[in-house]
Amino acid sequence: MSAIPTPNLSAYPELDTPARLLFGPGPSMVHPRVTRAMTVPVVGYMDPLFLDILTKTADLLRYTFQTENRLTLTVSGTGTAGMEAAIANLVEPGDSVLAFAKGYFGLRLAEMARRYGGNVETITKTWGEAFAPHEIKAALDRRPAKVVTIVHAETSTGVCQPLDEIARIVHDQGGLLIVDAVTSLGGVPLKVDELGIDVCYSGTQKCLGCPPGLGLITVSPRAEEKLNARKSAVPNFFLDLALLQKYWGSERVYHHTASMPMHYGFYEGLRMVVEEGLENRWARHRKNAETLWKGLADLDLTLHVPHDIRLVTLTTVRIPDGVDEAQIRQRLMQDYNIEIGAGLGDLKGKVWRIGLMGYSSREENVLLLLAALEKLLHK
Amino acid sequence: MSAIPTPNLSAYPELDTPARLLFGPGPSMVHPRVTRAMTVPVVGYMDPLFLDILTKTADLLRYTFQTENRLTLTVSGTGTAGMEAAIANLVEPGDSVLAFAKGYFGLRLAEMARRYGGNVETITKTWGEAFAPHEIKAALDRRPAKVVTIVHAETSTGVCQPLDEIARIVHDQGGLLIVDAVTSLGGVPLKVDELGIDVCYSGTQKCLGCPPGLGLITVSPRAEEKLNARKSAVPNFFLDLALLQKYWGSERVYHHTASMPMHYGFYEGLRMVVEEGLENRWARHRKNAETLWKGLADLDLTLHVPHDIRLVTLTTVRIPDGVDEAQIRQRLMQDYNIEIGAGLGDLKGKVWRIGLMGYSSREENVLLLLAALEKLLHK
Repeated sequence: MSAIPTPNLSAYPELDTPARLLFGPGPSMVHPRVTRAMTVPVVGYMDPLFLDILTKTADLLRYTFQTENRLTLTVSGTGTAGMEAAIANLVEPGDSVLAFAKGYFGLRLAEMARRYGGNVETITKTWGEAFAPHEIKAALDRRPAKVVTIVHAETSTGVCQPLDEIARIVHDQGGLLIVDAVTSLGGVPLKVDELGIDVCYSGTQKCLGCPPGLGLITVSPRAEEKLNARKSAVPNFFLDLALLQKYWGSERVYHHTASMPMHYGFYEGLRMVVEEGLENRWARHRKNAETLWKGLADLDLTLHVPHDIRLVTLTTVRIPDGVDEAQIRQRLMQDYNIEIGAGLGDLKGKVWRIGLMGYSSREENVLLLLAALEKLLHK
Repeated sequence: MSAIPTPNLSAYPELDTPARLLFGPGPSMVHPRVTRAMTVPVVGYMDPLFLDILTKTADLLRYTFQTENRLTLTVSGTGTAGMEAAIANLVEPGDSVLAFAKGYFGLRLAEMARRYGGNVETITKTWGEAFAPHEIKAALDRRPAKVVTIVHAETSTGVCQPLDEIARIVHDQGGLLIVDAVTSLGGVPLKVDELGIDVCYSGTQKCLGCPPGLGLITVSPRAEEKLNARKSAVPNFFLDLALLQKYWGSERVYHHTASMPMHYGFYEGLRMVVEEGLENRWARHRKNAETLWKGLADLDLTLHVPHDIRLVTLTTVRIPDGVDEAQIRQRLMQDYNIEIGAGLGDLKGKVWRIGLMGYSSREENVLLLLAALEKLLHK
């Protein structure tokens, strides 16, 4: 077999990507302070200075999740790795699982639970609606489940699932509740302990002003009991929470080499959550979303989700009749360096997805986006 | 349940870690060009500019692995995620697996294969030795295996496993060969196609001058056939290579949000591999290792591994009688900002582990390390 030739470097030039305005479903724009923190020199994964950063990160993450859960940490990966960590650890082969799916990510939870051997039933709903507590209860009365999954902020539809009462219903029949908070954590009111959520996961790249690269997860004592009572090892070694906790906790047993730049950036991002205050942050996301919604209505555009369950961090806008949705997105990018998202799954070709998350959620961004849309749609 | 109080920011100060000299088992030091590349603005995961970077990365990674394998990509995670991707995809429940383990990471491969339902037998060897081809053949003659695992550069022992003939032996009895190249790729001669390796994985943070954050993997057409013939879905959704290839390949189907800063940095790191040339890079790692070894001998220190199978990227040094090994490591860090590694597993307390990888492998680093060791050991 012949040797592989050396590539010609002229075909692989230095990076030169422009500063896009990211108003899609994520990643959102990275705060400059986070980018700067990522350039802090890399140290070893057992360096006391780095271990101290991990401990502080867990503290600040507990505040952000509004939880006292001991088992609160990050996984090396992205929000999807957080989802996988939740399922891989909580679902044992044969466990009955009820997946409430009202969009793409709800279905993905069901798919993952099946892969880990769960006995999964999926309850679906039209993309753009939310589940009512009595629907959750009726489904569980009919078919009890050890694990129930639901998405708080469904990135594919722009729906914010109300979470009141759900954990109580799930607990009353002996199950555990897993909640996907990828597109809500830090942008939408979410209090893990008050809501009684057992496992909640998220990512860094949506409402926290950081780049993608870490999954975030918190696990209640009740869910920890299930982990401790597992009959089989977690098939997924890389995301085995018991092994990860031995590194994050006082034992400091090596598991894998953490990504220092990602941790540096995320720590800075969490510091900024504390500086702003969670309530203020939630209010900022709502205020900018309301400005966007009013502006879109003024452009005669129709929002896909009713106001009471509409997600402030991601808005789905119906494509007007006669408009080439892909062309508008292309022109936004070419003419103004603006990214918005296409529809996904059932809503493909039917909506645009506009995200205002983290550092992207600023009034000047809303004004620019509305002005650009007006030019392209009403020229 | 009461609300979680806002942390006091004074307990969570801005990052202030010093620029350590990283001569441990990894991470190694990050090249400044890589750090700078990581600050390039984040764009969307479907942005044509980003997809182009992925395509170019796969090209440069093929050169680095010395392979023409179509299925060559990165996973979001670290080297351990690369290991997990190899096992999760290649080992189906009931598959017979032979794991040749001469150190910590060889044992970890066996552990992962068991978790994915493999029928695993582990052939062990004293930590500090390598397997001979006739030993591999004898084990396979006794117990054929669909999957054989072996570590090229065993980070726990400092042994470089010769790989000639092994793939042929494995193929002759119908199996596939998985090789761990975490501590060798880019630092030690390794030609995946010429050696006939079926699955090879590595990480960014050892010999490639990048921070941790991506796992690297390449899969031969022969191994792809096994993937395509799987009877069950890969349990691990996040690391399912078929789904990842649909994003990396021409279909561009969303799987998860890639970490742009990690990809930016890695692309720059790979460009530097091409600039230097693989052969020159291998020669640099050897030259600096030989300088280190001579200097350590001059300090009356004994190396744990014989010269013919000694790894140039990671050297294990026996702790001299009467020396407090932890105290020396602490003083190196406190007095000179130098990190070296402790022994792991069977070699805990018996050796130091000195890494000279990627950007850490420079002559000035060797001189400084030797001078510091001389001061501490022969004061």
